[in-house]
Amino acid sequence: MKHLPDFIQKLIDEFDKLPGIGPKTATRLVFDLLHRQNDIKEFANALNNAYQQISFCPECFNLTDDGLCSICANPSRDKNIVCIVAHNQDVEAIEKTAEFDGVYHLLNGLLSPLEGITPDKLKIKELTRRIEKNGIKEVILALDQSMEGEATAIYLSKLLKDHGVTITQLARGIPMGANIEYTDEVTLSSALKNRKKI
Amino acid sequence: MKHLPDFIQKLIDEFDKLPGIGPKTATRLVFDLLHRQNDIKEFANALNNAYQQISFCPECFNLTDDGLCSICANPSRDKNIVCIVAHNQDVEAIEKTAEFDGVYHLLNGLLSPLEGITPDKLKIKELTRRIEKNGIKEVILALDQSMEGEATAIYLSKLLKDHGVTITQLARGIPMGANIEYTDEVTLSSALKNRKKI
Repeated sequence: MKHLPDFIQKLIDEFDKLPGIGPKTATRLVFDLLHRQNDIKEFANALNNAYQQISFCPECFNLTDDGLCSICANPSRDKNIVCIVAHNQDVEAIEKTAEFDGVYHLLNGLLSPLEGITPDKLKIKELTRRIEKNGIKEVILALDQSMEGEATAIYLSKLLKDHGVTITQLARGIPMGANIEYTDEVTLSSALKNRKKI
Repeated sequence: MKHLPDFIQKLIDEFDKLPGIGPKTATRLVFDLLHRQNDIKEFANALNNAYQQISFCPECFNLTDDGLCSICANPSRDKNIVCIVAHNQDVEAIEKTAEFDGVYHLLNGLLSPLEGITPDKLKIKELTRRIEKNGIKEVILALDQSMEGEATAIYLSKLLKDHGVTITQLARGIPMGANIEYTDEVTLSSALKNRKKI
């Protein structure tokens, strides 16, 4: 498509980088967007704001705009219970159940040696430090029921065994192969209630 | 998700406006993007450039960066044959075949009275003006084989009948890779009618 102006091709390339969006979809999205000129401007502003304001909570590594995230900064949340999740979306899903009043710890991924995701790539050192420093009583492993999720859960439960902390994981009931992000609220909420000591 | 920082919610809303992208996908895309900070900046720049540079070819209404589009500005393209398409993507698709050396005319949509897309919403006045002014010999209707595409083709062929211009449309037939068994009756019957000697 060499006759496309450069600025359009560049924009298509940016959309193409997003997960699950290929060049065809990227082209379709760009052409749609280019016909709504106000939206281009607003979209650009939203991205610029995000670029300038984005930061990660120094406590749990969740996305935030400044300093502690709204969950860690909330005095009514129980700082003694930490729910360990892989991704930001998982926090959203669990928050929606309104069943959890503790805090989170984002690993920023799951162990996957084949893809080069080893323990040092995840926020695991930060987790053990946090447990030691804050006297955390319980960690809940809320990880995907996938190979990587299981491997990460086993790794963490071994690692944390000697830290004097109760380790639990979400109750089985979440169907095998499902992602936390897409689990319906009822299943997720009963999985939280029935979490089991391991 | 009231605990999400505003700038994230705003960005999700922008993605949500794109066709075929709902709030769930928008959230997933945004969280992915927010972990690649350089890409946020580049994405914003690409959009800003697009906003500043976008313009439409005054001749064919294709997207361009300045003045005539690269196809209309190309002296080796035959200005006497105009291919009428509904969307920018259709130009891409036809250009890829490298079979067409005429120029295009973008309608910017297809007639759909139920959705309020009447002839005055499309670049039809501009088409008749262009035919009269430039002495165009042939217009090729390259419109989708949908209700709207058919309606637009019928409308245009009636409208252009008295303009002394040859009106053609893309051949109907069996697409590459199709099975006879699963080809619909309309396609098969027109493929039979238009059979070619080999």
